[in-house]
Amino acid sequence: MKIAFQGEHGAYSEQAVFDYFGDVETLPCETFDLVFDSVTSGKADKGLIPIENSLAGSIHQNYDLLLRHNLHIVGEYLLRVRHCLISMPGMKKEDIKKAISHPQALGQCANYLRNLNIKPETVYDTAGSVKMLKESGARDTAAIASKRAAEIYEMQILEEGIEDNSENFTRFLAISTEPTVPKEEAKTSIVFTLKNQPGSLFKAMSVFALRDIDLTKIESRPLQGKPWEYLFYIDFIGSLQDENAKRALEHLGEYALTLRVLGSYPRFK
Amino acid sequence: MKIAFQGEHGAYSEQAVFDYFGDVETLPCETFDLVFDSVTSGKADKGLIPIENSLAGSIHQNYDLLLRHNLHIVGEYLLRVRHCLISMPGMKKEDIKKAISHPQALGQCANYLRNLNIKPETVYDTAGSVKMLKESGARDTAAIASKRAAEIYEMQILEEGIEDNSENFTRFLAISTEPTVPKEEAKTSIVFTLKNQPGSLFKAMSVFALRDIDLTKIESRPLQGKPWEYLFYIDFIGSLQDENAKRALEHLGEYALTLRVLGSYPRFK
Repeated sequence: MKIAFQGEHGAYSEQAVFDYFGDVETLPCETFDLVFDSVTSGKADKGLIPIENSLAGSIHQNYDLLLRHNLHIVGEYLLRVRHCLISMPGMKKEDIKKAISHPQALGQCANYLRNLNIKPETVYDTAGSVKMLKESGARDTAAIASKRAAEIYEMQILEEGIEDNSENFTRFLAISTEPTVPKEEAKTSIVFTLKNQPGSLFKAMSVFALRDIDLTKIESRPLQGKPWEYLFYIDFIGSLQDENAKRALEHLGEYALTLRVLGSYPRFK
Repeated sequence: MKIAFQGEHGAYSEQAVFDYFGDVETLPCETFDLVFDSVTSGKADKGLIPIENSLAGSIHQNYDLLLRHNLHIVGEYLLRVRHCLISMPGMKKEDIKKAISHPQALGQCANYLRNLNIKPETVYDTAGSVKMLKESGARDTAAIASKRAAEIYEMQILEEGIEDNSENFTRFLAISTEPTVPKEEAKTSIVFTLKNQPGSLFKAMSVFALRDIDLTKIESRPLQGKPWEYLFYIDFIGSLQDENAKRALEHLGEYALTLRVLGSYPRFK
């Protein structure tokens, strides 16, 4: 099986692929668009995309791609993001004056770096920063990336888990051309729009509350091209196969201007 | 009056400061934390912080800072983000092989750059990229930043409005040590947590729906340090001075584990 992900070998997304799918072949893609294209064209069997991070919020771009493509969510995975301080072999922490990484990773280690008086410098990618460091051979510089990136490039891990906030999780979604029928406890993700009138979201939510269906995510998002109109993202516990969930979505269809079910999939435990 | 913002002179945030406050003195701060500190300590009279972008979503970091500090939201402003391709004076578009900017700005101009075969390269800041370009004097490189940044550094604008999606808005909040009493139509922002049980959010929303109070934003966010628990952000139309809104918040207090009013302020039109 071949799984597409965004980033280079050693990216956190590739770590999530191995955690979730096991021993598979991976297809690194430069952009999220290319992940979707690879799955649509059959170049990859499935794809794994980040959809939200506990610190940085929802990745709207991937919601947009889900709406533009005809793929199905078939699974979810929650990755604990643990950043490593990575150097050339033989270096010590005292040698390090500069750290290179993706701005988000640098931001998540800001206090750690400040305490050690290490100057942050941005580059495009976490795993890419390890590659760059290896190529430059700089002895006063560290990269911040995953443990796996250090292993791939045979570099030294000076310290693991250097993020300021240990509650740093990224939620990933597995996407496929074919829907799945979850046998265990399921989650369903939907996107819909409503008439812009008082109480419309409350009515929309009543279709779940009246059926005791649990929501695990709700988010309003200003609609592109239509300021002051909104898209809503909802995840709920249940599968499209459940009579209860099917009725709730039929009921929601009475209120919603547009409604798209992105998929039902086994809930991550 | 002195207004604190995050970034360098010429940043989009500084543009928003002048648009919203008029002819004021600005205090550039390296981080959002420093914006909050400047306002708290009285070094600045007020601050202006971005809270959400129509493409990139909510800026959770600034919600966290609002919760950690004892400041009040006293206004909002919606900035249309228009990126410019900026070069050394005398250059033409054909000369440009490389573009430097903040990764988010580069991402928002990705199609434009691809069509012109210009290679993106990340630096930390949009306005900072113009400064860097001026210092280097590179003739094959452009910076992507605001019109204002080009003017400040006396550089040439090769093209204005190069973003792929023209519906790119950033919402800013004005913060102050003193609350305001809005005279015109008002908006109120709150943050709360709920017991993790079915229907709890529906009950919470009923306090607004039952009083015909319009919501303009709702978002659930996994709670840091407590996986599977949630913070909720809600903005609604109305002021803390309205009897209706006051009663709704009292009613919400019956369900919420924690509830913080971030401020009532004039709605941006």
